[in-house]
Order: sequence, then C-alpha cells, then structure tokens
Amino acid sequence: MTEEQLSSYHPTLPPTTEEDRFSWLRLLRSRKVGPATFRRLLREHGSAQNALAALPEMARAAGIEGYEICPPGVIEAELKAARAANARLLCLGSADFPNQLSDLSDAPPMLWAIGDVSILRKPSIAMVGARNCSSLGARMARGLATDLGKQGFVVVSGLARGIDTSAHLAALSTGTVAVMAGGVDVIYPAENTDLARDIAQSGLRLSEQPMGINPQARHFPRRNRIISGLAQAVVVVEAAAKSGSLITARDALDQGREVLAVPGHPFDARAAGCNLLIRDGATLVRSADDVVEALPQQPADLLDTTEPVEPSKPALSGAALHREILSRLGPSPIAEDQLIRDIAATAGDVGPALVDLELDGQIQRQPGGLLSLTA
Amino acid sequence: MTEEQLSSYHPTLPPTTEEDRFSWLRLLRSRKVGPATFRRLLREHGSAQNALAALPEMARAAGIEGYEICPPGVIEAELKAARAANARLLCLGSADFPNQLSDLSDAPPMLWAIGDVSILRKPSIAMVGARNCSSLGARMARGLATDLGKQGFVVVSGLARGIDTSAHLAALSTGTVAVMAGGVDVIYPAENTDLARDIAQSGLRLSEQPMGINPQARHFPRRNRIISGLAQAVVVVEAAAKSGSLITARDALDQGREVLAVPGHPFDARAAGCNLLIRDGATLVRSADDVVEALPQQPADLLDTTEPVEPSKPALSGAALHREILSRLGPSPIAEDQLIRDIAATAGDVGPALVDLELDGQIQRQPGGLLSLTA
Repeated sequence: MTEEQLSSYHPTLPPTTEEDRFSWLRLLRSRKVGPATFRRLLREHGSAQNALAALPEMARAAGIEGYEICPPGVIEAELKAARAANARLLCLGSADFPNQLSDLSDAPPMLWAIGDVSILRKPSIAMVGARNCSSLGARMARGLATDLGKQGFVVVSGLARGIDTSAHLAALSTGTVAVMAGGVDVIYPAENTDLARDIAQSGLRLSEQPMGINPQARHFPRRNRIISGLAQAVVVVEAAAKSGSLITARDALDQGREVLAVPGHPFDARAAGCNLLIRDGATLVRSADDVVEALPQQPADLLDTTEPVEPSKPALSGAALHREILSRLGPSPIAEDQLIRDIAATAGDVGPALVDLELDGQIQRQPGGLLSLTA
Repeated sequence: MTEEQLSSYHPTLPPTTEEDRFSWLRLLRSRKVGPATFRRLLREHGSAQNALAALPEMARAAGIEGYEICPPGVIEAELKAARAANARLLCLGSADFPNQLSDLSDAPPMLWAIGDVSILRKPSIAMVGARNCSSLGARMARGLATDLGKQGFVVVSGLARGIDTSAHLAALSTGTVAVMAGGVDVIYPAENTDLARDIAQSGLRLSEQPMGINPQARHFPRRNRIISGLAQAVVVVEAAAKSGSLITARDALDQGREVLAVPGHPFDARAAGCNLLIRDGATLVRSADDVVEALPQQPADLLDTTEPVEPSKPALSGAALHREILSRLGPSPIAEDQLIRDIAATAGDVGPALVDLELDGQIQRQPGGLLSLTA
C-alpha cells in the first residue's frame, strides 16, 4: 500500500489546544498551502507546528526563493476579527465539522462559522441557480425551499442574488446555510445584508476564506464545491447554458451527489442549462417530493411546519420598475398578481407600467390575466 | 410450435384481384372482425372469401344469434365513395402498405389513402400534443416540423387543432401524413378543411375507418396507434397530465418506438405530461437535432429501399435535385443506383448532380459505388 493510499484511510486528527489551532490556521494561511497540501503536510510531519518548521526548507528545495510562512500577526488579526464577528472555527476531524464535507478529497481543513452549527447535522439540499432569474424561477426556488424545509431539510446556497436569495429567504424559518465566497464576515452582495444577518441568527454562514476577505472571481468555484459538498443533493433551479450553476452541478456529480434540475421551455434561454443537465441524466424536478424521492436515503422525521417570512423591499418606479418587470417575465406566461407580489409593489404602480410595456410591444397579455414577454 | 407462434412468421398475402379486394374489405367491415381476428381468419381459411363463407357458422357456434356478414351493397357504396374522393386502398402485405405498420400485432389490414403514398417510404417522425396548446407550444411544433422536414423526415400527425395543425402546416412543403380518426374523406375539425385539402395534394391522408364515417371518441386511441406505428419516433410537444397524447406516448413505447418530449416549466400545467414522460425516461427535446440524435438509425438507413410501386413524380433538376439528393443521403453510405431509384430520376440527371455535390464537398464517394453525406 502506498503512502497516498494510506492517507485516504488516515483520519485527520483535529487540533486540541489553542496553540495547535493557531498553528493549523497559520499553516493553512501560508503561501502555496491548499487543502490537499495541508493534509499531506500534517500527515508527513505529524503536526501543524512541525509542518510550519519544515516548510521554508521544503520551499527552498523546490526552488522557491525567499519563502516565508504566514506571520503570526496575520493569524492574530484574523482571530481578533473572528471574535468581533462572533465567528467560530470548525476544524476537519472535529465533532462539529460537517460530516458530508470530510469525505471530499479537497475538503477545507478549516471553516469559519457564524450562527447555529448544529444544523450541519441535519440532512441538507443545495439549491443553486441564476442570479438574474425570472419571476418563475424565483417562485420555484421559494416553493422548493419552503417544502424541503417543511420536510426537515436544511437548504444550502450561496447568498447570491436571484435563486440563492429566494431559497435562503424561504428556508429562514426551517434552517438555511449560506456558504460565502469571501470572508464569513463580508456580505456580498450588499443588498443581502439583512438576509445575511437573519441567516446568522436562525441558520448558519460558513466560509473557508480568511476573515475580512472580499470575494474574488476565483473564490466562487472553490466555494461552490462546499455548497454541493455539504448537501445530499444539488437542485439547479434556473440556469443558462455555460453558467456557474452548471459547473457546480458537474462538480457535484464528481462528488457523488445527486444532481437535479428544474426544466423549462426550450425557448426560455434561462432554462437551457437545466434542460442540458436533464438530457445528461440529471433528475427532472417538479416539486420537493421529486427531490426527496431522488435521494439515496430518506430523511428522519424532522418536520417543521412554521411559515416562511416574506421580506419587504423598497418600492420601484419608472424605468427601474419597467426593467424589473421585464427581467421577471419570460416566454412562459405568469399571472399578473403573482408578478406584483414578486416585485413587492402595488397593483396601482405595476398596472400603468404594464400598460406602457404592452403598448410598447414588449409584453403580451394572454387569457386569464397571464403575462409573458413578446416573442 | 403453436399456431399462434407460426402466425407471426407467416406473412399476410395481399389480395391480387378486384374480387379479392372486395372480399377483404367485406370481411374487415363485418361485425366482430377487428385487425387481429381478420388476420387469424385469413390464416385459418386461406382467403377472405373462405373466411366470409365460414363466419356465420362460427358465430352460431359461439352463441351469436342472427349473425350476418357485411352486405355487399355496403362495400359497393364504400368503393364508390372512395372513387369519388380519389382514395386508394392500401392492403397489408402489398408493396405500397407502410412497412413500419406491418410490424404491429394490431396493424390495420387495410387503409384508405388520399394523396402521395410514396412518402410512406421516407423516414418519419410523429408529432402529437395538446389541442388547446399555448402559443409557445404551437411555435415549438412549427419549428420542429420545419427542421425535421428539412432533414428529410415526413411529419405524421392527427389533423387535430393545436399541435397537430401547427406540425402539419410547417411540414406541408417537405411531406406530412395526416392519420384521420374517422373516414379519410371526413374532415374533422371543420376548420382544418383547407389544411386537409393541402395535405391530400402535397402529402397524404390515411384512415382505417370506412369512407364517410364521422370520428367518434373510441376512434381516437385506435387512430393514435397508427400515428405512432408509422413513425420511427414520437415527439410529444405539449401535453397536460392525463391527456390523450400521454396515452399515445405509452402506446408508442409498447410499439418499440422512441418517445421524446419537449419540457416546460413545472408551473405550466400544459407541460405536466411532457415532464412526466421525461421523468419516466423519454428523451428531452430542445430541437430537431435532439430528435434525430435519439433515433436508433440515421435517416439514410431508414429509407425504405424496396422497389417503389408508383413510378410517380416529375423529374427533378438543378437545385431541387441537389436538395433531394442531400435529403436522401446520411452518414451511412447507400448505393448510387438505389439513390437514383429512390429519386425516380435517371442516371443521366443524377450523375452530374452527384459530381457537383462531390466537388462541393457535400457528399463522399466510397468503395463499391456507395455514397454518403460528408461528415
């Protein structure tokens, strides 16, 4: 048996002292140490402290000039920021580290957590999808998240605009986990500041990034492996072709997770990614029941029937309202009153805007008070 | 080997004389004689005439009082109506009877046909769906039928409102078959009178029912087995749960046909049937390419290469000839002389056209005089 093979059967022993945790964080924050290297170093050197001592010489041997391990002041600052944000460090191998994640070859060695870590023990479903989702997509995300919550599932998502936001909001009362791309204390996008605060109060925010780090493009795919890694299944609610959600779905398949997708009409570009996934073998989702049915294991009776909280938004008007209406309509017709609820505006405001758009030929009215984009 | 087993290996011999055809029709129109009984009687008694002679005694033995075979006047009237409608009788086992249908255990022994029976030799796709389809569904049907037509497929449907109408209209110029629930001369719904006339002119209308019969509810499922039976694949474009299209789809599966469905958003009730089919294993369709890709055989292989009965069709030339050649070729090579017979043109016309297309890089010559489309 080779060392590599051995390693996968050798559980990482978590840090037991404050000093040990400090060294873990310092090793992880040192240059060129990713999750896999971290585990290898720990295995080869027995402890983070030993690994830190050996790192400069290893770097020199590998031809890296002037390598320095992470200065202790950086770690002190991170721990201070974590205390201020009331964040807690979850370490791979500890009892509070999410079980599902430990199985991944690139599991994050440490995660910052703000909120109720106990919900990591519940069965969970990841929901991902387009930031610029349609009104139909947002409604679908809300419906699925509400019903999955009622059936005892925690909803995991990424706190982004669109589908993520709808899913988190609908699952606030039943349990939701937001995995952040930047630091666990850095809310992005800013419009989700209230939502992020609510999630920290009733659910959980998680991040593998250092405290205070602004999310950058490269953080998002790394973050997405944690979203799917935490869950039993990943539901793609609305996704265009070549979207980030599609990449998450493929990663989820690599992780051995169930991948499911909500279909849409082929003329709706926002459904192209989901339809592609279904053609490739993802399970077609019409309802939460379809999700539960697709799981290899059924959940325990974790029923919670409290109603989700509907958020309020500032009222829109003029061109902003027109844009908002157009962004929420697609080729599939939806009801006018549903649209009004989705925009969180009054019928008195939306009505005239609809007439404008209809006269302008941008939208169409159909029998039964239904509206759609003009083809 | 039992008689039943033998029967499946025993081809039905078609009628060869006018008198024989008369007896076939008379046997088929006699009470309690369906497609399966018709075949059994023919097999057991050697000819329709013998079967007719034996029927009353068989009925008596089975406890049916006062059984009478169909009076000759009824058949004379049907034949007269057929002459008036310019309808032609296709008999199971004849060269002009559609090959695909012959394979069915409940294949209709006879079909009335108005139009160009030669298109029954082309590969064909059935398109079915809701009568009260959405405009999105109608557009999808038009797009699919147009593109399938361009790729050399005949579009088979049922002349109903909605999806059927859209599919027929879009495929008028490339070839379409309407299978009627009532008599081939009875247009239902009346609003499709012009369409039915156009189909008879450029395509084909078919029915197993007697001339002049108004369609009744029980005729539709019987008719649907012919729609799916004629085609290599059945595409369900838009269908609610518990709809007739769904029944057609299940029958098609029983017939060993590919079943495909166009997805829609779960909130759209008109997509519920299609989404259900996809969950149950139907192939998700976004475009004509998805349909062609799902076929077990590619178009060129599907061409019926038996000798055409009718020397038919005016000679093609120029661009029309080029198009015709390209529509008949696929990636799998076929023989040049077969191609010439299929097009019903002369080698003197086809030869130069092939050289043009070959120089143009559109087709390839292979050893043994075989031709294929350039990959």
